[in-house]
Amino acid sequence: MCGIVGVVGHSPVNQAIFDALTVLQHRGQDAAGVMTCDDGRLYLRKNNGLVRDVIRTRHMLRLLGSMGIGHVRYPTAGSSNSAESQPFYVNSPFGISMAHNGNLTNARQLREELFRSDRRHINTDSDSEVLLNIFAHEIAKQGKLHVDADDAFAAVAGVHQRVRGAYAAVAMIIGYGIVAFRDPNGIRPLCYGRRETDDGVEYMVSSESVALDCLGFERVRDVAPGEAVFISADGKQLATRQCAEQPRYAPCIFEYVYFARPDSIIDDVLVHEARLRMGERLADKILRTWPDHDIDVVIPIPDTSRTAALQLAYALGVKYAEGFMKNRYIGRTFIMPGQKQRKKSVKQKLNPIPFEFIGKNVLLVDDSIVRGTTSGEIIRMAREAGARRVYFASAAPAVRYPNVYGIDMPAVEELIAAGRSEAQVAEAIGADRLVYQDLADLEEAVRVANPKLAHFDTSCFTGEYVTGDIDGAYLRRLETERNDQAKLQRDGEEDSVPELYNVS
Amino acid sequence: MCGIVGVVGHSPVNQAIFDALTVLQHRGQDAAGVMTCDDGRLYLRKNNGLVRDVIRTRHMLRLLGSMGIGHVRYPTAGSSNSAESQPFYVNSPFGISMAHNGNLTNARQLREELFRSDRRHINTDSDSEVLLNIFAHEIAKQGKLHVDADDAFAAVAGVHQRVRGAYAAVAMIIGYGIVAFRDPNGIRPLCYGRRETDDGVEYMVSSESVALDCLGFERVRDVAPGEAVFISADGKQLATRQCAEQPRYAPCIFEYVYFARPDSIIDDVLVHEARLRMGERLADKILRTWPDHDIDVVIPIPDTSRTAALQLAYALGVKYAEGFMKNRYIGRTFIMPGQKQRKKSVKQKLNPIPFEFIGKNVLLVDDSIVRGTTSGEIIRMAREAGARRVYFASAAPAVRYPNVYGIDMPAVEELIAAGRSEAQVAEAIGADRLVYQDLADLEEAVRVANPKLAHFDTSCFTGEYVTGDIDGAYLRRLETERNDQAKLQRDGEEDSVPELYNVS
Amino acid sequence: MCGIVGVVGHSPVNQAIFDALTVLQHRGQDAAGVMTCDDGRLYLRKNNGLVRDVIRTRHMLRLLGSMGIGHVRYPTAGSSNSAESQPFYVNSPFGISMAHNGNLTNARQLREELFRSDRRHINTDSDSEVLLNIFAHEIAKQGKLHVDADDAFAAVAGVHQRVRGAYAAVAMIIGYGIVAFRDPNGIRPLCYGRRETDDGVEYMVSSESVALDCLGFERVRDVAPGEAVFISADGKQLATRQCAEQPRYAPCIFEYVYFARPDSIIDDVLVHEARLRMGERLADKILRTWPDHDIDVVIPIPDTSRTAALQLAYALGVKYAEGFMKNRYIGRTFIMPGQKQRKKSVKQKLNPIPFEFIGKNVLLVDDSIVRGTTSGEIIRMAREAGARRVYFASAAPAVRYPNVYGIDMPAVEELIAAGRSEAQVAEAIGADRLVYQDLADLEEAVRVANPKLAHFDTSCFTGEYVTGDIDGAYLRRLETERNDQAKLQRDGEEDSVPELYNVS
Amino acid sequence: MCGIVGVVGHSPVNQAIFDALTVLQHRGQDAAGVMTCDDGRLYLRKNNGLVRDVIRTRHMLRLLGSMGIGHVRYPTAGSSNSAESQPFYVNSPFGISMAHNGNLTNARQLREELFRSDRRHINTDSDSEVLLNIFAHEIAKQGKLHVDADDAFAAVAGVHQRVRGAYAAVAMIIGYGIVAFRDPNGIRPLCYGRRETDDGVEYMVSSESVALDCLGFERVRDVAPGEAVFISADGKQLATRQCAEQPRYAPCIFEYVYFARPDSIIDDVLVHEARLRMGERLADKILRTWPDHDIDVVIPIPDTSRTAALQLAYALGVKYAEGFMKNRYIGRTFIMPGQKQRKKSVKQKLNPIPFEFIGKNVLLVDDSIVRGTTSGEIIRMAREAGARRVYFASAAPAVRYPNVYGIDMPAVEELIAAGRSEAQVAEAIGADRLVYQDLADLEEAVRVANPKLAHFDTSCFTGEYVTGDIDGAYLRRLETERNDQAKLQRDGEEDSVPELYNVS
Repeated sequence: MCGIVGVVGHSPVNQAIFDALTVLQHRGQDAAGVMTCDDGRLYLRKNNGLVRDVIRTRHMLRLLGSMGIGHVRYPTAGSSNSAESQPFYVNSPFGISMAHNGNLTNARQLREELFRSDRRHINTDSDSEVLLNIFAHEIAKQGKLHVDADDAFAAVAGVHQRVRGAYAAVAMIIGYGIVAFRDPNGIRPLCYGRRETDDGVEYMVSSESVALDCLGFERVRDVAPGEAVFISADGKQLATRQCAEQPRYAPCIFEYVYFARPDSIIDDVLVHEARLRMGERLADKILRTWPDHDIDVVIPIPDTSRTAALQLAYALGVKYAEGFMKNRYIGRTFIMPGQKQRKKSVKQKLNPIPFEFIGKNVLLVDDSIVRGTTSGEIIRMAREAGARRVYFASAAPAVRYPNVYGIDMPAVEELIAAGRSEAQVAEAIGADRLVYQDLADLEEAVRVANPKLAHFDTSCFTGEYVTGDIDGAYLRRLETERNDQAKLQRDGEEDSVPELYNVS
Repeated sequence: MCGIVGVVGHSPVNQAIFDALTVLQHRGQDAAGVMTCDDGRLYLRKNNGLVRDVIRTRHMLRLLGSMGIGHVRYPTAGSSNSAESQPFYVNSPFGISMAHNGNLTNARQLREELFRSDRRHINTDSDSEVLLNIFAHEIAKQGKLHVDADDAFAAVAGVHQRVRGAYAAVAMIIGYGIVAFRDPNGIRPLCYGRRETDDGVEYMVSSESVALDCLGFERVRDVAPGEAVFISADGKQLATRQCAEQPRYAPCIFEYVYFARPDSIIDDVLVHEARLRMGERLADKILRTWPDHDIDVVIPIPDTSRTAALQLAYALGVKYAEGFMKNRYIGRTFIMPGQKQRKKSVKQKLNPIPFEFIGKNVLLVDDSIVRGTTSGEIIRMAREAGARRVYFASAAPAVRYPNVYGIDMPAVEELIAAGRSEAQVAEAIGADRLVYQDLADLEEAVRVANPKLAHFDTSCFTGEYVTGDIDGAYLRRLETERNDQAKLQRDGEEDSVPELYNVS
Repeated sequence: MCGIVGVVGHSPVNQAIFDALTVLQHRGQDAAGVMTCDDGRLYLRKNNGLVRDVIRTRHMLRLLGSMGIGHVRYPTAGSSNSAESQPFYVNSPFGISMAHNGNLTNARQLREELFRSDRRHINTDSDSEVLLNIFAHEIAKQGKLHVDADDAFAAVAGVHQRVRGAYAAVAMIIGYGIVAFRDPNGIRPLCYGRRETDDGVEYMVSSESVALDCLGFERVRDVAPGEAVFISADGKQLATRQCAEQPRYAPCIFEYVYFARPDSIIDDVLVHEARLRMGERLADKILRTWPDHDIDVVIPIPDTSRTAALQLAYALGVKYAEGFMKNRYIGRTFIMPGQKQRKKSVKQKLNPIPFEFIGKNVLLVDDSIVRGTTSGEIIRMAREAGARRVYFASAAPAVRYPNVYGIDMPAVEELIAAGRSEAQVAEAIGADRLVYQDLADLEEAVRVANPKLAHFDTSCFTGEYVTGDIDGAYLRRLETERNDQAKLQRDGEEDSVPELYNVS
Repeated sequence: MCGIVGVVGHSPVNQAIFDALTVLQHRGQDAAGVMTCDDGRLYLRKNNGLVRDVIRTRHMLRLLGSMGIGHVRYPTAGSSNSAESQPFYVNSPFGISMAHNGNLTNARQLREELFRSDRRHINTDSDSEVLLNIFAHEIAKQGKLHVDADDAFAAVAGVHQRVRGAYAAVAMIIGYGIVAFRDPNGIRPLCYGRRETDDGVEYMVSSESVALDCLGFERVRDVAPGEAVFISADGKQLATRQCAEQPRYAPCIFEYVYFARPDSIIDDVLVHEARLRMGERLADKILRTWPDHDIDVVIPIPDTSRTAALQLAYALGVKYAEGFMKNRYIGRTFIMPGQKQRKKSVKQKLNPIPFEFIGKNVLLVDDSIVRGTTSGEIIRMAREAGARRVYFASAAPAVRYPNVYGIDMPAVEELIAAGRSEAQVAEAIGADRLVYQDLADLEEAVRVANPKLAHFDTSCFTGEYVTGDIDGAYLRRLETERNDQAKLQRDGEEDSVPELYNVS
């Protein structure tokens, strides 16, 4: 997953982009980048690391201009080399840079097309560099010496026809403006807002509305699936147009489950509210399927599941307690010469407070169960802290299939629910009872706030992919790449600081 | 405030000290340091910054030895130059290093004594360097070529006689072992634990028990006020002795209010439990003084006040909701050439979720009110988010006096409650009603779990200082220093990375 | 001035390029860069600084591949922003990178053409980025999916038709090979060599033959003016072709005077030998014009003039002595707050040994006199060291005009000989007598070793420019840019480390 | 070898110390350090690396005060860990710091004494830390609360009685001043000078007079063997006193041969002049022992031997030529994964110009022959460059014994002349004839300028050590340590940046 932002203002935008990326940091802590444009020239700073570590005063001083874009990256195994950070750039036509959130499913084919038609070289494994070059090619096809909104929209329409997968992207064309667009299924989120200033209206596009909130921008609305937004470089024009032939709402439901910030509004649904409803639906299922439950206390696994767990407790009529403390300052395990890598225990991230466990039947609530190893360790910790019985509830259904739209997931064989029944998962993680959210309940928990959301991407639970182009061959290749990459990372020098560039 | 740790093990302790400092990071994010001892030689790494930034693989490789100490620093205005990090070191006698949490109130006089009696040079403004030299002098006074537990205890007794103020300290004597001690009032916390390994028992002393927990050490007990602990370098002996003449319990109550981690046990009181009780007492006071309250929802200011707020809500029988999202990735405001420093808004740290505020009478709960500016901004945010009425509760009484025992507080003139009645504070921060915890309730909320805690340092609320040596002249000098230092920091280059050494 | 290198080998070339750049470091200490190509992908490291500081082990580890190019940069006032380092890159067509030594005189016009014809964006002030894009455009014009030697030569021919000025360049085309070429006047040097290895023949192109020598390559020959060299990526083919319509030899004579290393062979002339002859010619002139000279000793200004001075002394029959010590470790003058910039005295770079001066009439020999301030200070030092009379000889004629082909020179108004007769220069620098080399003698000193060198660029002495396109307007614009840039640098923060990228 | 400097001025001395260290950089490129004193507080910056890399603007800003000392370090195998840089510091008594050039031969014993008498801990392997603690102990013995010149001289007298070996040192006592002293044999050089300023006279002590020259200080004289200089902190008093009982001149003759800068005056002898005389004496020997020599040209191995070679050529009546170019920008050989360390060829440091060799009988001149491997390679290069015959002359006699006074030499077994006759050495290095300077000639070449230099340390040639305390056991231990350390360095990570502190 990644976070993107674009701003056209009337004074330097470096601070605004920095602030927005900080607010979007939960969408990717792996790398950060800012590109600004001033007087026909681009300025760039990007590197691996947190926003605050990558961008220092000396970089801010060089990030000139009142138009710019930014990116935070969460590495997507199998489609993104950990050595690449965004925005990317091509110098022809016009000089275009781009920040992208998502994953293209036909990147291999596009890469070949780009070489054949344009002899464009893609220097990284990143499908984002592919998307940028496709967009650049479509802009070039317009054959103009100047780019206006119509040209931009025509180019986006061309992109939609060639590209498959998930993409919310923001591109900056030197001298002309910013173009933001979202794939025809609206898998990844994108919204925009405006801010009145003494010098005129300023515009921002962002992965999540919380960045608009925190910077004092008023959220206008979500960008619709397939839609594009063009903001002219002088900030005087904002135009939007539907550029896809058959757009539909099929957003990734994981954004609501755990990825997005609860105070964001995505496709007109407040994430916080959706999570409260997930807790309610879970409570309904428990009351329905286990009317004589003996739960004494509901305890969330911080931080994401707190909202759902609180509402679940209220709906069950059971006490809610904070039983785990999260260690905010994550350490690391150094590998000293002659030592083997030691397993990092969950204990370093989460510490139980026995006071809340002793002698009680506790229901632990998490947003989802992926590998199951953390869940198992937490359950063991709860028992050691004195719990009599330990139940476990997941706000999402069982995760059994890979994600191909930009969420980093382990290989299928590492998913604890792959090939296991719910009872088998419960046994595997050591829970006295396990409750999974039903998929229909999860969808309803979101949809109730916006009935237009007819579909969701729920492929992790069902194996059905909304883009319709995912077959066994694709998934097998993906598994192979993930395994290879995982292997590489295991072999890698821990402390190496790869200063990675998109060459040029 | 600061965090300290000392470990004597049977294998390299660098990772253990690193981990412990990470767990104690909430006690100080300003600087970090580790000193280890191996084969008669010391190894050091310290610098300004977070533990994870200060200590990298290349430093770990050099931090040899099975005995070591560590420190995280929170700058104490007026008594600590921001350029100093611990542990400190003197090479005579024996080579002694020290990490210290607290503040000495007679440091000026001690500094002069050290020069007159010993011609010892103190190269920093830090009273910790003073404490180390006093301790070193007392060790030297024993006149031995070897140091054993008796010598160490005699030296600590000497320290107690000369030093006034708050100090929990851990010293490492090359070749002999680690000595940890706590001032006769037990103002700052200190505890120790043990861990069985195949090679024998290992010992750790730590500011808070949570570091013991997370590293798999079993908490033995708190170090008593005035008591010292000696752990021999070979790890075979742990001895303790009361070294003060009239020790008594008078711990700093702020540790319980907001400083310590809730999962720590300090002087046999679980902090989490004390905070739950603070919420209960606050609820009692509300029910007592405002029986017909119209509170619809209780909303905590995250993170510290969550525990008290939840219990307060249960006790009031009112709903509890998470209405603010904390931005975990704190940004910063860059000062560009020609710009003035812009005020950092609370909005960048905390974002309200209007859904929980609209049309409701909300009771916001915070651990304490110091300057009041943040509280005021939060109340304003709550109103803008749609709250009908905004009430405010503080888990601590009104803060009106400076802290001289190691907690960084603004100058008295900046304390909103200094010279203001509760009603005036309420008006100043814009609350429709303000409820302060009563001091007796606060003390009881802690004491109920350990009746031996006859006294607390509560000087911030009362102006009465447990060491009995604080007069008007001292406080005036303190104010001056704080103002001077504040001025210096305002003038300072924001991005300067002071590579600061205790010279040598 | 800059240095360039390109290598196609059969094993990793990173070390070879690093070594070659180190040997060429005298051609530019301002910035360094290496780009390699492996398996269809480029790897880059470049930054401001010396080669040894820019390229560290962690960079070497990523510079994969058996084909690569490198660059060291000497900033050319007026045409190169100090923030840019090479090689540059474009991703279309094929992915091409380039390192360039020289200066284009029609860069402004080319920049506009590139936008109109190709909508190619040039993101820097560097004419090297312009040259790369022109070359890329010419490659694209061939309309092939594969590039062979014929395509490369056709592209170079196209470059020659559009570009004016001085350029020795090496380009790398991903997947196809390396193309090196030299402008039709051969203003900047370029040569190539070969090395037999167990895996086959390896090729290197380099600004100077000394890089071939030091790496064990056998020098094959100079690249002729207008000629291009193509080396296929597999190292199996090296082809050359004359690509200019009317090539001729007009190399920059300054390479021989002071820029190149004496052990280099440029256009079949050993620089060391040329300098010996410059000394001989100077001696002839002295004997001819000042037969009764009273010179006691000839003393060189180290390091460049040592060769000429030694031969001059032999030819005069006068003793030669080393009278100045050069400080190899150049310091710097820090500007402390509240201080004004202090003038850096020549004394810190050069220290006289009075023993060699006392009571003697000394002839100081330097390669040339530019601003004259250094010469003046050295003469003063010689007098203070005890010299009776101080004469001064310059191995080059009077410098009176700007250089437009890549050598960094001050503005005309700062050239001491601009508008001054020789006698006036002598007076201005305080010499008892001044002897300038005659231009015809200088040319002969070089030409004698290679009679084919019919012309030289000697514009600094004569104001006649070999490219025939330099008019008053051009020179006035140049002066303005140099003054502006100089001003900028004076204002600049001394210690700022501009991490400068060619964007993307 | 190392370089030291101390300055007492009337305005900030950081720039002066920086400049002086830069001028002394040839005495040690391994590490650099500056300590200044301002208002009773010390400021330090030291690290491994060149002066210009270690000390940046941000450090200069913190190096406050008008009194300070500095150090550049050349690692002395066997007695100095590569991880230590100077100045060192102790905080008792008074706060004393020290920079030291030399090597103590009874450091082991002193280390034990320091523990027994003072319980002072020495945390490094450096004998400089020992010397500082001995000096500190002697200062403390004076039992004063204030230190004046008499106390300082008494302390130095105490040092002379306890310490054996070579030491030129400069100590700074906080609040009182700077004390510089030289061992009773005067093995390492030390001199001082003065500079008039508007604010009064400023003083500098320095390893070599060239630092005085370059900074505009007038050289007063050398510090005599056994003598001490005290400069009061206010700069108003400079006092000197002989503090040794039987001082005598026995300076290290290697300073004249190759270590010192030629423009330095050491013990009233201009090094440049001594080297000219070495050339003359060598010529005499050649004419005497080989009257019918067939030498065509004399070629120096740059840079050190240039002076002697030139004079040798004049005395022989043979032509002198510069035949080797030194590569000023030294590269390095990276060890890539899976590669073995490749041997660094001399070719990367020195490149022959065949023009000067072809068909000639050349006499190569170097200052000395140590391992002989470089000499061998150079001779081979000369032959490959076309020389008919290659003769070799060494300005120093055969090196056969270890140096114990601070010059880094390989183990005896690696000295090519150890156990070999001159003829055997000639054969081993491949010279057609080899001429070593006679020891008496070498001594006379120096002594002629100052007849008071009755003795020299010439132990490397004779095995006789001027301190009279070196026995076989000492030398065997030294060999072992050198071998161990060499081994360690071979094993070490090449790119590790040891941030090494004298702990605290």
